[in-house]
Amino acid sequence: MSITVTILGNSSAKPTATGHPSAQVVNINEQLFLVDAGEGVQRQMARCGISALKLRAVFISHLHGDHLYGLFPLLSTLGLYGRRTPLRIYAPRPFGEMLEGFMRLFEKDLPYTPEWVEVDTTKHRIIFENDTTEVWSLPLRHRIPTAGYLFRQKEPPLNVSKYCIERYGLSVSQIVAAKRGEDIELESGEILPNDKITYRPYGTLSYAYCSDTNYSARLARMVEGVDLLYHEATYAAAEKRLAKERGHSTTADAAKVAEMAGAEKLLIGHFSSRYKDLQQLLDESRAIFPNTDIARERERFTIEPKRHDKS
Amino acid sequence: MSITVTILGNSSAKPTATGHPSAQVVNINEQLFLVDAGEGVQRQMARCGISALKLRAVFISHLHGDHLYGLFPLLSTLGLYGRRTPLRIYAPRPFGEMLEGFMRLFEKDLPYTPEWVEVDTTKHRIIFENDTTEVWSLPLRHRIPTAGYLFRQKEPPLNVSKYCIERYGLSVSQIVAAKRGEDIELESGEILPNDKITYRPYGTLSYAYCSDTNYSARLARMVEGVDLLYHEATYAAAEKRLAKERGHSTTADAAKVAEMAGAEKLLIGHFSSRYKDLQQLLDESRAIFPNTDIARERERFTIEPKRHDKS
Repeated sequence: MSITVTILGNSSAKPTATGHPSAQVVNINEQLFLVDAGEGVQRQMARCGISALKLRAVFISHLHGDHLYGLFPLLSTLGLYGRRTPLRIYAPRPFGEMLEGFMRLFEKDLPYTPEWVEVDTTKHRIIFENDTTEVWSLPLRHRIPTAGYLFRQKEPPLNVSKYCIERYGLSVSQIVAAKRGEDIELESGEILPNDKITYRPYGTLSYAYCSDTNYSARLARMVEGVDLLYHEATYAAAEKRLAKERGHSTTADAAKVAEMAGAEKLLIGHFSSRYKDLQQLLDESRAIFPNTDIARERERFTIEPKRHDKS
Repeated sequence: MSITVTILGNSSAKPTATGHPSAQVVNINEQLFLVDAGEGVQRQMARCGISALKLRAVFISHLHGDHLYGLFPLLSTLGLYGRRTPLRIYAPRPFGEMLEGFMRLFEKDLPYTPEWVEVDTTKHRIIFENDTTEVWSLPLRHRIPTAGYLFRQKEPPLNVSKYCIERYGLSVSQIVAAKRGEDIELESGEILPNDKITYRPYGTLSYAYCSDTNYSARLARMVEGVDLLYHEATYAAAEKRLAKERGHSTTADAAKVAEMAGAEKLLIGHFSSRYKDLQQLLDESRAIFPNTDIARERERFTIEPKRHDKS
């Protein structure tokens, strides 16, 4: 069960001829989540071969236009395509008021309901959960209330070792009990502790999206051990002061967060339009955290499952 | 003094990976006007080398998203770029309410004022006028109130023929009087009628944008003699009934309007996403009105001035 992140845009607020503003699609356990929705997001999805109709939910970091303006056209299009299932949109206040205005003035007759779920940007907690997946909010430090999002796979169900099934001649009911986590008593009276006969087929993976934000050591602790970290790096390392003033990070800030968190890999993006050549930004980050890549538009980054082959 | 129309997008409502929704920039007498503003318009302008800061005014045909969603991000960007001059936006009701909501929820501190000018979509009249240019509203027949726009150059000032100046030895004050349209009395008592010694240096040009609309013979009369006509052609000729029901036109409808109006040239666009190959649509229109072209995205169409070389 891999996690795949498709970058639809990674530009900052000033539009350029070459790039699109922030938007990504996260595929986790075959569920598609849209994370931020800068202008042009629906066309970028089409160009990347991602069907907008398959979106399970939307997560908006904050209400600056370069992270949001593409959402309303997308909502209209889903209506044109006949979506019926409600679509949950996780976003900070006052998104509800924007959505209400949009529905009233632009789309009175949508065949589905966009449902706003308010995100408290001061809290680090689970905001979405189902059998396989959880999404946590990450308080960020920007000019307006902003949340990052941490996507985590839940532990997969226990598998029972084939070797043990054969060796101890386990019955179907004993296997089912072991999968539930129980110890097994054999006819001989011998007790098999659950952890001796079961294993998790794969480790859990995680992905964190952190944009827009100042450098935050607290954030690094919240994403500790994350497999893939997207952290904005609007400015080069030399612009530390400007970054701080504007509620943004430098390449060095992003790399430090990745390092402190013990992340497996770092993606940087949201670059200021002043940077035409991104190699310098990448070099700066790699000097601190070598496993850095640029989150280039229309590229896909996959975190491969860590298989536990015990059987 | 030419007129240039740059096509930024010509797709209809359903977005595609290949095209952008309706938007154009009309350059008339070195003034830039944005006509409709589908999603992505600001990036398309950048790709076409057109500075958004130079926009003089915006004309919106109707309030369907595929003609409008790109406007709000553009208004934000003009703020980022520090525009100070108010920007007039000509649009039907209730655009003012949309603009007010946008300003209140997204852009409280814009450094300039977007000013809504209401367009009465039932009237054919001058809605914009300065020394060189006038813009007329064109009532269209769509599902919601919709206006087309007719851009016309005004007559240029009179020039005095160099031949006459030399032949009659006209003084500076006589030349100025002739430019004002007066007849000139020579010392001999001879009267030179103004139209014998003056001429207009070039003829006036016009461009009409007509989208979205059903076929309308009345429209053809309103754009009589237009040099360049953009007329939507959402559907192939065979889909006449569907076009009528949906408030749209076929290729044949567009061509008939061009023919009845005596237009010089026709551009067709706003094609339904069902048409992958546009040649059939072009052929259908050309069968009725040979001088038809497809308004391809990022192409520029120039109407050259008709010079009157009398000097």
